[in-house]
Amino acid sequence: METISVRTNTRNSFIDITGKVVSLVSSKGWGDGILVVYTPHTTSAVTINENADPDVQADMNSFLSKLIPDLPDFSHAEGNSDSHIKSSLVWCSETVIIENGQLVLGTWQGIYFCEFDGPRNRKVHVKFIGY
Amino acid sequence: METISVRTNTRNSFIDITGKVVSLVSSKGWGDGILVVYTPHTTSAVTINENADPDVQADMNSFLSKLIPDLPDFSHAEGNSDSHIKSSLVWCSETVIIENGQLVLGTWQGIYFCEFDGPRNRKVHVKFIGY
Amino acid sequence: METISVRTNTRNSFIDITGKVVSLVSSKGWGDGILVVYTPHTTSAVTINENADPDVQADMNSFLSKLIPDLPDFSHAEGNSDSHIKSSLVWCSETVIIENGQLVLGTWQGIYFCEFDGPRNRKVHVKFIGY
Repeated sequence: METISVRTNTRNSFIDITGKVVSLVSSKGWGDGILVVYTPHTTSAVTINENADPDVQADMNSFLSKLIPDLPDFSHAEGNSDSHIKSSLVWCSETVIIENGQLVLGTWQGIYFCEFDGPRNRKVHVKFIGY
Repeated sequence: METISVRTNTRNSFIDITGKVVSLVSSKGWGDGILVVYTPHTTSAVTINENADPDVQADMNSFLSKLIPDLPDFSHAEGNSDSHIKSSLVWCSETVIIENGQLVLGTWQGIYFCEFDGPRNRKVHVKFIGY
Repeated sequence: METISVRTNTRNSFIDITGKVVSLVSSKGWGDGILVVYTPHTTSAVTINENADPDVQADMNSFLSKLIPDLPDFSHAEGNSDSHIKSSLVWCSETVIIENGQLVLGTWQGIYFCEFDGPRNRKVHVKFIGY
């Protein structure tokens, strides 16, 4: 298992970690299999979506905060129940395919770390299964 | 890695691809392991849900479009931010178990390709890990 | 593949199954790889979230029922389309990493079975890939 570090600067943000994952795959020489990209935090997530137009992430970020607002009637005393709910709906991991030493991503796909309770220093674990 | 082709005919639709996946498992002779079913597009998804009553997919499809509408204040110029958001919330892959050469699906479970920006010609990648 | 049994007592509930999964990993002697935790039902899900303060699950549970209510205009005759939609949005499986015979969960992470149409007797399949 390898671990990638991510620094986030706002409460909610999407950080493109595709380059870091691609570099890891290349430096490790992983050839054929699957990769589990996993965040061990309960107020963050990992998603795969368009990395061409940054407006896509901006729209998703603002829409998620409208869909899942920080409601005053939440019970959890830390005041970040919205962050936990976003984490479960967007999901704490992604599984991607590796073929011939390359991540199989679609033309427009990038891997994003999703921060829902920043700013913080975060980790993403990467586990390869294959040969 | 194998690739399944899917043709979609409307902007939003759920296409049952269980039969295609089952045929692939059988023709490849995959015996014991896991299968990653992955769509490389950023405005589609893969989900597992009931395949007995088609009303379940119809209800889900119409509810998702109410929950995540095509809002006029989205920034992304292509006008499909709702499609991208649905893709991240429903998810671009599923991981299923294979035992004794059979997909381990529940009695009522089927695997669906979810189109959120059709009609289009789409792909679903299938990667087996096991023996 | 191993199977865990879960008994749920209300229509909507989150059941912490971390202890059962940890015991299984230990008793099986699984050392290094990944674990797919999969529910074969179409009105339940598996999620990973905070297991320190039970208010987090309570907030998530009540918020999900507000976000995805049991609408009178759903077509599905069994009256549980909301349960099916929650299942697809929260997801029917989780993939976790195992290193040195230990589940790699974050400090605050636990694995939850999510019941959306109980009370029922439910199953969770667990498949290990590794050595």
